[in-house]
Amino acid sequence: MHISLTTEEEAYFASFLQYKNIRRKQFLFQEGDVNKFQAFVIEGCLRSYSIDRSGFEHVLQFAPPGWWIGDMQSIITQQPGTLYIDAIDDTAIILLFKSDLEKIYTAVPKFERFFRILAENALATYQHRLIGNLSLSAKERYENFCRLYPSLIQCLPQKQIAAYIGVTPEFLSKMLNQGTAKK
Amino acid sequence: MHISLTTEEEAYFASFLQYKNIRRKQFLFQEGDVNKFQAFVIEGCLRSYSIDRSGFEHVLQFAPPGWWIGDMQSIITQQPGTLYIDAIDDTAIILLFKSDLEKIYTAVPKFERFFRILAENALATYQHRLIGNLSLSAKERYENFCRLYPSLIQCLPQKQIAAYIGVTPEFLSKMLNQGTAKK
Repeated sequence: MHISLTTEEEAYFASFLQYKNIRRKQFLFQEGDVNKFQAFVIEGCLRSYSIDRSGFEHVLQFAPPGWWIGDMQSIITQQPGTLYIDAIDDTAIILLFKSDLEKIYTAVPKFERFFRILAENALATYQHRLIGNLSLSAKERYENFCRLYPSLIQCLPQKQIAAYIGVTPEFLSKMLNQGTAKK
Repeated sequence: MHISLTTEEEAYFASFLQYKNIRRKQFLFQEGDVNKFQAFVIEGCLRSYSIDRSGFEHVLQFAPPGWWIGDMQSIITQQPGTLYIDAIDDTAIILLFKSDLEKIYTAVPKFERFFRILAENALATYQHRLIGNLSLSAKERYENFCRLYPSLIQCLPQKQIAAYIGVTPEFLSKMLNQGTAKK
């Protein structure tokens, strides 16, 4: 935790949290919607992705337990978003609405610090990911995926991992088999 | 401005700012350094980039006047960074050191809000860029570049723009000529 809260502040914050269950393959958010909340995953896994003109999915982010997820551009501008967010497994989440968060910032300003640190950490992760996508090989991008999401390596379908590192499922499968053969 | 400051708070903040001039092609930060500051551009232009194993440069970000730039992962973790930051033109900047920023947060907590909003806006920009790199054509990525950096279209060398959108300078030149021919 990046800030210390009194019992009252904790209770105040908790009063705004909305618990929700999402079934596997169900959408939390779709392209063209306005994203009014950030979601925090308690159990299961969400992913955010875009679909290109040829119908291919490109995964922006996975959110296993403990991760936040949202279409930040839509949340900030309150304009229609460009991402889809759906559940890879049955998933339990907490929703925190932007309008409630503004109330929380006013009542308990130290949450500004909490969400500043959260945003900066996410920003660092995205900078690192983008540099990886621009300059690393598929194998190195796979290794970065493993470092970032150790809990997902065994349980995610390979086609999801392929859509994250930017290769076809066939290429990923071949690459991983070559890796095993070499060991 | 995202926050209102008293004259005293403004003066306190300003007392930490360090002004610096960087000549064209001079480095502000190199791979392997620990990034202890964020830089704000007053005049000129900085860029952050990585160099891959084959020696090719990949531009993460440009910083024309009014933009902040830094290697966020290195700033947060205080571990050696992976980026280079140098000047495209003679550039005037303000440095804000991480250690000073922590003092500022303690003395004037509303700066937490200012830098939270800054980080969230940057995060949204990176999400958008990453999705573009994953799913858009080179032409669409060029259009996104033009929307994000309207002031740079005319003054940046084409090879810098190519290194940002992820194509060779020859490909970009051919693409832009085709666009002109069609009009």
